[in-house]
Amino acid sequence: MVQIPNTPTSADVARLAGVSRATVSYVLNKTDAVRISDATRRRVHEAARELGYVPHAAARSLRAGHSRTVLMPAPAIPVGPLYSAFLNEVQGALGRLDYTVVQYGSVGLQCDDAARAWAELRPVAVLVPGTGIGPRGVAVLKRSGARAVVTLGPERVEGAHALLMDHDAVGRCAAAHLYERGRRRIGVVVPEEPGLEVYSRPRLAGARQALRGTGASVIGVPLAYTERAAAELVANWPELDAVFAYNDEYAMLLMRALQDTGRRIPEDVAVIGADDLMLGRLLRPRLSTVRIELPSGRALAALVDRAVRDPGGEPEVHRVLGSSVVRREST
Amino acid sequence: MVQIPNTPTSADVARLAGVSRATVSYVLNKTDAVRISDATRRRVHEAARELGYVPHAAARSLRAGHSRTVLMPAPAIPVGPLYSAFLNEVQGALGRLDYTVVQYGSVGLQCDDAARAWAELRPVAVLVPGTGIGPRGVAVLKRSGARAVVTLGPERVEGAHALLMDHDAVGRCAAAHLYERGRRRIGVVVPEEPGLEVYSRPRLAGARQALRGTGASVIGVPLAYTERAAAELVANWPELDAVFAYNDEYAMLLMRALQDTGRRIPEDVAVIGADDLMLGRLLRPRLSTVRIELPSGRALAALVDRAVRDPGGEPEVHRVLGSSVVRREST
Repeated sequence: MVQIPNTPTSADVARLAGVSRATVSYVLNKTDAVRISDATRRRVHEAARELGYVPHAAARSLRAGHSRTVLMPAPAIPVGPLYSAFLNEVQGALGRLDYTVVQYGSVGLQCDDAARAWAELRPVAVLVPGTGIGPRGVAVLKRSGARAVVTLGPERVEGAHALLMDHDAVGRCAAAHLYERGRRRIGVVVPEEPGLEVYSRPRLAGARQALRGTGASVIGVPLAYTERAAAELVANWPELDAVFAYNDEYAMLLMRALQDTGRRIPEDVAVIGADDLMLGRLLRPRLSTVRIELPSGRALAALVDRAVRDPGGEPEVHRVLGSSVVRREST
Repeated sequence: MVQIPNTPTSADVARLAGVSRATVSYVLNKTDAVRISDATRRRVHEAARELGYVPHAAARSLRAGHSRTVLMPAPAIPVGPLYSAFLNEVQGALGRLDYTVVQYGSVGLQCDDAARAWAELRPVAVLVPGTGIGPRGVAVLKRSGARAVVTLGPERVEGAHALLMDHDAVGRCAAAHLYERGRRRIGVVVPEEPGLEVYSRPRLAGARQALRGTGASVIGVPLAYTERAAAELVANWPELDAVFAYNDEYAMLLMRALQDTGRRIPEDVAVIGADDLMLGRLLRPRLSTVRIELPSGRALAALVDRAVRDPGGEPEVHRVLGSSVVRREST
C-alpha cells in the first residue's frame, strides 16, 4: 500500500491554536479586513508551523474570485547578468506588494496558444517580455480574469500596458559614436540565432536613422555565433571601417576573427558592442560598448499594482531603456 | 465605472457546442476515462476557442485532488547557455507528459520558508536545483500533496529523489590534467560571489582528492569577479604554476591579470576553466576547459513521472554530470 502523509487542514490549525477556522484563514491569507491581535496571529502561525500546514493558493484564489499570482513567461534564451538582476528585482518588489510571481515556460508554444496556457493559471497580471503576445492573446487573458497585461518589448500591443524597450536608441547611440570617430562605412551585426530579431531589428533601424542624410552607409551584417561564421564573414569582408557588433559577445567573436587575419582594431576597423559586460574590459584593445539601463524593478511592480487596482484604466505606455556609450580603446 | 469583460464559463461552451458541461470538462481537461468522438471533441474545442474560454487550472486541481503542476524554483543567479538549454529540455519533456511546469522565484526566502511558499501552489512535484531545500522543507511539500521532490545538487536530502550533481568530478578532472602536464603547485579558484559555494566547494574537494599522496599541493584561491580583485591576487601571487579557475569566465579574468603583469601562459602558469564556453576558444592562448554534460531533460522528466505515479516508492538516487577535459593551449 502506498502511504500518503495526512495533509493537515486549517481546521487542525484552528483546533491547536484555539481559534476559529475563519481566524486561521484571516491570519494566513493576510486579510486586512478584520482586526486580530498580534498574540492571536502568533498562535496561529505557530500552530500552522507545528502542523506543517500551508494555505492553498488555488483555493484561496477561487474564494477571492481572483488570485495574487503574477505570471511572467520564463525566457527561453539564456539571460545575461543584467536581465537576471532585473528579473530578481521585479520579483522582490512584487513580493513586497504581496504578489506571488510565477514563471511559466512557453517553449514550443506559439503566441496565442501560449496566452491560453497562461490563462489556465488565472493570473491577476501577466508580464510578457519580447513579442510573446498579440491582441488576441491579451483578450484571452483578460476574459479569464487577468486585470493587467504588461508587455516589455519594442511595440505596443492592443489592450496591454507597454514598457517600450527602446532598442532603436541602442543602435542610434552606437552609430552616432562611430560616425563621430570618423567612420563612414558602418556594419551592424544582425545575429542569426532565433529569438534575437526583436532586439536586432530595431538596433539596425536606429543606426540607419541616426546616420540618415550624413552620406555614411549603414549595412546589416548577418552573423551566427560560431567561429566559422565569423571567419567566413571576415574572409569576405565588405570593407567596412566600423562595426556595431550587436552586443559584447558578438563583438568579442568578431574582434578575434578580424585580429586573426591581421586587421588592426580600431585603426582598420572600429568595433563597438553593447551591454557593458566584464569581458569587454578584458579584451585588448578594450572594447567600447553601449551601456543599457533597464527600467527599475520597483517601477514595474508599481505599474502592475496600479493596473490591478484599476483594471478599467487606459493602458499606460512608458519608454524605458537608457543608452549611453562607454568609449574604451576599440573605437 | 470599471468595465470588466465577461468571463465565459464552461456552460457557455456547452451551450454553443450543443453538449453537456460534463463533456466540455472531459474534453478540455483531457480526461481519458470517457470515450468521446473526435467530432464532438472538435466541436468543443472550436466553441471554446470562439468564446475565448480556457479551463481553470486551480479549479481542475481542486476537483482532481491534485494538480499536474511541476514547480521548479527559478534560478536567482544568471544561467549560462548550457543550463538554460537543459531547463528548456526539461520543460519540453514534462509538457509532452502533460505536466505544466511553473518556475517560482524564491529570492530572499530561506530554505524552509521557500518550501512553504512553494507548497501554497500545491504542485504535484517539485524540482529543486542547488541546495535550496532541507528535510523539513521536503516534509512540508509532501504533507501538502507533492508526490515527488527531486533535488539536483551535491548531496541527498532525506525524503527526496536525488540527481547527484558530481561537481567533485569536475575538480578531479581539472587537477589530474594539470598534474599530468607537470604542474605541482596548483591553485583552485573559489569565487567569492554568494550562491556559488554549492559548486565551488566540491570542485576544490575533488581537486584535493585527485592529487592526494602525489606530493603536489592544492590551494584554494578566493577571487571576486572584478578586475581589481584579479589584479590584487596576481600582485600577491602565491607562486602557483597552475590554476583551475572555477569556470571559463573566471579563467578569462585571471588570464588577463596574469598577462598584464608579464606572466606567460602556460609557460609560467597553466590555466584551465570549465563549461567550454565560446569565449575560451577566442582567448589567446586558447583556454583549456572541463566540458560538463548535464543529465538529459527527458530522463529527468521520466523520473518525475515515475515518482508521481508511485509516490510511495523508495527515493531514487542517480549520479549525473559527465566531465571531460578539452585541452587547448593554456595548459
